[in-house]
Amino acid sequence: MTTLTFQTQIQDLLLEVEARMRAQGDGYHPILKEALDQLLGSGGKRVRPTVVLLVSGMLGVDNYRSTSLAAAVELLHTATLVHDDLIDDSKLRRGQPTINSTLSTPATILTGDFLFSQSAGLGAQVGSPEVMHFFAQTLSTIVNGEIAQIFQRNALTDRDIYQERIYAKTASMFELAAKAPSVLVEGHRHHLEPLRAYGHGIGMAFQMVDDILDFSSNADDLGKPAASDLRLGLVTLPSLYWLEANPDDGRLATLQAGQRLPEAELDALVDDIRHSEVMQFANREAKQQVQDAKDMLAGLPDRPERDALLQLADYVVERLN
Amino acid sequence: MTTLTFQTQIQDLLLEVEARMRAQGDGYHPILKEALDQLLGSGGKRVRPTVVLLVSGMLGVDNYRSTSLAAAVELLHTATLVHDDLIDDSKLRRGQPTINSTLSTPATILTGDFLFSQSAGLGAQVGSPEVMHFFAQTLSTIVNGEIAQIFQRNALTDRDIYQERIYAKTASMFELAAKAPSVLVEGHRHHLEPLRAYGHGIGMAFQMVDDILDFSSNADDLGKPAASDLRLGLVTLPSLYWLEANPDDGRLATLQAGQRLPEAELDALVDDIRHSEVMQFANREAKQQVQDAKDMLAGLPDRPERDALLQLADYVVERLN
Repeated sequence: MTTLTFQTQIQDLLLEVEARMRAQGDGYHPILKEALDQLLGSGGKRVRPTVVLLVSGMLGVDNYRSTSLAAAVELLHTATLVHDDLIDDSKLRRGQPTINSTLSTPATILTGDFLFSQSAGLGAQVGSPEVMHFFAQTLSTIVNGEIAQIFQRNALTDRDIYQERIYAKTASMFELAAKAPSVLVEGHRHHLEPLRAYGHGIGMAFQMVDDILDFSSNADDLGKPAASDLRLGLVTLPSLYWLEANPDDGRLATLQAGQRLPEAELDALVDDIRHSEVMQFANREAKQQVQDAKDMLAGLPDRPERDALLQLADYVVERLN
Repeated sequence: MTTLTFQTQIQDLLLEVEARMRAQGDGYHPILKEALDQLLGSGGKRVRPTVVLLVSGMLGVDNYRSTSLAAAVELLHTATLVHDDLIDDSKLRRGQPTINSTLSTPATILTGDFLFSQSAGLGAQVGSPEVMHFFAQTLSTIVNGEIAQIFQRNALTDRDIYQERIYAKTASMFELAAKAPSVLVEGHRHHLEPLRAYGHGIGMAFQMVDDILDFSSNADDLGKPAASDLRLGLVTLPSLYWLEANPDDGRLATLQAGQRLPEAELDALVDDIRHSEVMQFANREAKQQVQDAKDMLAGLPDRPERDALLQLADYVVERLN
């Protein structure tokens, strides 16, 4: 695992989190154990556990509870990815084969369910019913968002709906990671709301950056064609801005109606969007989210972990440069 | 909802549990809300919540926590059924259409996930990390058992493996229902083990009775052909006893090897088993489990709820008469 600058002070704890997650397969069927190994081995920067560990360190949560919480959050995230990839029929994630490309549909469903149970088990070790309640809420929000997206895939035409969607998909989990530690120690409950808002901001920015890179990167970088979402009729931040600036562009209307565009016309639309000023609008919005997130940390304890959380926020939009 | 004799003293609480479960759909996408309504409306005797409420009443757990726990257990059970029916491609349950026969595969997966989250939310309201830990353990056990069954469908030839399988599939959830209340009140922790054993016994018997009725009932009673499991190559209690008594019966070996038997030969095998003494052996084993379960209650508080728990145990094997 490569360590990012803001992870230096917690690198031992991150290794501990990795070990805790890995140990969740012990004593279970080889299929489940191997699926867990495959998922953990495929990398990932562990941004969500990092948020948990830095906030916990800043507030003085003991290491057993902070690593339990960090591992529980990451496994909950992983569980949702396993079911997501199955639902979307995705074959690769971070360049590695997904579980649904390795196992049957039944075994993939059960692998996701297993990760839910192991996440709940780690969550229980945190010892706080309130934190368990946060976990349940987060999962409900994510699932509700996915259902909404499945049944309204092509209906998105305004920025409020986009915000709701990426909140459910990504920001809710960052909120969980950032706010949960605040209820684990006496005297920090007044930090819950600013920490939630910090998690919200970096989470929203995180998804916006993904959506922007989907347009601006070349196929080679991401292993999928540029604007893969748009090609499925799914409007994200850049195409949303494009739609606002060009309400009469019939090509987007066609895609949103669930109809296909000729390949050449689709490529031209993607090119028009990626070379237009809407990319700058989208960049600016993501950066504003990060700035708002950073501002939320002003009243938090002035400790090295707070500086790392500020760096982490900047890192989220660094990929845009 | 029809009330059984042993449910009389808790019928108001059972209505409360029903309302708590129903309310879990509030504020969520209509698809999820309707799926929940469909699942709760399709009936079921609420045996698991009844166990929770009776044990809770016997030990003096307050009604808010006991109804939260009962609702959480039933939703966890329901979540596993939703994914099960999808995995097995079952179209009906209790004569009603399953979620996977109503919704797409993605929406069915997400409905199950939603029930996991709502179960966890109710579980958190119980206010006990230890109970959350029990929940997580139970789900891990169930999922592990299903994975084992998928990957070893035809390999079962001994009673230990059968016991393990039905423990994972059914008895583990009854254990959860019976033992969890004991950690919610001071001074009852020494009752955890006998209550666990009570739940284990009635849960094992419950599944054995299902497996026996699968052989002895007519197609009309169950809405599926007699010995539906055996027809899929899955050995359960009656065929297991048959195999022990007739180790050289090549017909069973053929099924276990994953090969098909001609319909007439299969019907003859089912007839041989259902008219043989092995049905009595199986009956006796289920009844012994219930007797063992009842014995476990000897040291529990002598209250009306204990009598009801004894009646509930008898009810599990009543279907055999």
